[in-house]
Amino acid sequence: MLARTVGAIGPLDVSAMDAARARHGRLTKPTGSLGTLEELSIRLSGLAGVCPPPLLDPATVAIFAGDHGVHAQGVTPWPQEVTAQMVANFVAGGAVVNAFARQTGAQVTVVDVGVAATLPDEAKLVAAKVRPGTRDFTVEPALTREETERAIEVGITVAHQLVDGGTRVLVTGDMGIANTTPAAALISAFTGADPGRVTGLGTGIDSDTHTKKVAVIRKALDLHRPDPADPIGVLAAVGGLEHAALAGLILGGAARRVPVILDGVIACSAAVAAVELAPDAASALIAGHLSVEPGAAVALAHLDLDPLLDLGLRLGEGTGALLALPIVASAVRVLHEVATFDSAGVTEK
Amino acid sequence: MLARTVGAIGPLDVSAMDAARARHGRLTKPTGSLGTLEELSIRLSGLAGVCPPPLLDPATVAIFAGDHGVHAQGVTPWPQEVTAQMVANFVAGGAVVNAFARQTGAQVTVVDVGVAATLPDEAKLVAAKVRPGTRDFTVEPALTREETERAIEVGITVAHQLVDGGTRVLVTGDMGIANTTPAAALISAFTGADPGRVTGLGTGIDSDTHTKKVAVIRKALDLHRPDPADPIGVLAAVGGLEHAALAGLILGGAARRVPVILDGVIACSAAVAAVELAPDAASALIAGHLSVEPGAAVALAHLDLDPLLDLGLRLGEGTGALLALPIVASAVRVLHEVATFDSAGVTEK
Repeated sequence: MLARTVGAIGPLDVSAMDAARARHGRLTKPTGSLGTLEELSIRLSGLAGVCPPPLLDPATVAIFAGDHGVHAQGVTPWPQEVTAQMVANFVAGGAVVNAFARQTGAQVTVVDVGVAATLPDEAKLVAAKVRPGTRDFTVEPALTREETERAIEVGITVAHQLVDGGTRVLVTGDMGIANTTPAAALISAFTGADPGRVTGLGTGIDSDTHTKKVAVIRKALDLHRPDPADPIGVLAAVGGLEHAALAGLILGGAARRVPVILDGVIACSAAVAAVELAPDAASALIAGHLSVEPGAAVALAHLDLDPLLDLGLRLGEGTGALLALPIVASAVRVLHEVATFDSAGVTEK
Repeated sequence: MLARTVGAIGPLDVSAMDAARARHGRLTKPTGSLGTLEELSIRLSGLAGVCPPPLLDPATVAIFAGDHGVHAQGVTPWPQEVTAQMVANFVAGGAVVNAFARQTGAQVTVVDVGVAATLPDEAKLVAAKVRPGTRDFTVEPALTREETERAIEVGITVAHQLVDGGTRVLVTGDMGIANTTPAAALISAFTGADPGRVTGLGTGIDSDTHTKKVAVIRKALDLHRPDPADPIGVLAAVGGLEHAALAGLILGGAARRVPVILDGVIACSAAVAAVELAPDAASALIAGHLSVEPGAAVALAHLDLDPLLDLGLRLGEGTGALLALPIVASAVRVLHEVATFDSAGVTEK
């Protein structure tokens, strides 16, 4: 399934982009006056292969949850059980991501791809656990290659199911106590940036814990020496189940030519892996915001993506990406709904 | 009416802000992880005088339209008749501001405060013309003091009517061919910044026109020498009818303790005037975005406001402010809807 998905990902449609560019010149506004939104709508026309591209409604935020063996190394003050508790909070609709989804009209899908607890059988929760948390990657690889591929395929499957169900834009979400540690390790492994440059304060750790976190990542990279040209190997060595599943979601979205709005550092690390697997997947990616986590900026620069928002966010869950959703949807809407100079009887300059 | 409105504008309620700060510490997220949105929601609690403050629904974008005598000086390649044509486009729902209002669920109110044409009698258009365009301020003051006060009162009246009708957040909108010229003149007069620093390319003028535009503004400021401590005098000398009306909308919103989201350089220039009239009005202001027009950054720095978005926009109409609306509404929604650690059974760190 992974190979088939990668094979289905192609380049942007240049003629649809030309049509969008031409259309922008005829709409009742000075050409270029919508800045980033014009560029974005042109790219989304190229992704859809048609101008205007489909309106981005409905949107779905897909939240992948997993736990991390490296939690045992004391990289966060939050107990591991919070992952499962927050999954329950998502299902009950009580988390920030739920509030933002209601504001923006997005649907919420919660996927257990690797929580280290038995979660209740619940209609609103997709049960796709590959294993109950990763192994401690300071000691051994976090995952086997086979587990990694299965987690990626969970993400691909979710993307297909959502698009089949009508979703027109995918929004990345994540939950996993300690998951900024594998995210930083992945970004360091793929980009070559030093762990000290990509490792942040996560949910708000103190400076001793930060020093330990950097050391833990450095130790794991020294132990496994992952090869950035082998993305499955990198994800297996120092990744997480939700990171791998998000890489799959991105690949699945790109294969279906549906845009994927990236949230924070977890999604950015997954995007780097996905683009390593399928370079054209980058065409489907929109950087929703710039997380406070320093690895996010490094990953986005590596992907050559400019974030839409910079609001000092460091929550994850998909929250920053959801805040960007109305902007992306508005960019597409312009190509559908705005009158031309001719149709509105407005004189040109 | 102006004096009564200014007198009704008071400071933020500190106890409501303390309550919001405390509430943020109990919600199921790391404290501070929502960055700018937390600070914003705390301020909006102080503005409303209660935590949580009212949900920001419905929102209304109020678009004030006017023409400009200085158009005769050749500061823009667009003919003046486009102002009236774009008003018709707003009423018909065909402009970008209409598309963004549909995306964000905002209502649209269009107000003729000074278009230099007789507009059709139309239920969707508020007829409040003070005069058909300003005078050419390179020759004489743009407005009399009495006309300026009447335009401000149009804005105050619209604010009261909208809030009485249920609007919970006001979004500034504007239309007026050549109106970046008075906006730059106002910002220069109020902040002391040189006209060359605050004058931009507007809808996309060439460098000769830009040189002329700066010279026109310099000439007007030399002619009138407006006193920044006399905001009515400044607006009368080098302002516009929509600029004055927007200052009134801001004062009216602040008096009713309803937030006002600023769009681009026109709104920013009006906000500087409003805050000069009533310093506490600043508490109600949210900078929706950073316009490409250089005067916007100067005005926002003068107001000590950080813009939420920076998307390379230079359209006006209220478009940038509408893109920021879901972010502001989301910030308030967090205080209403997100579960606490206790209520969700989530363990704290």
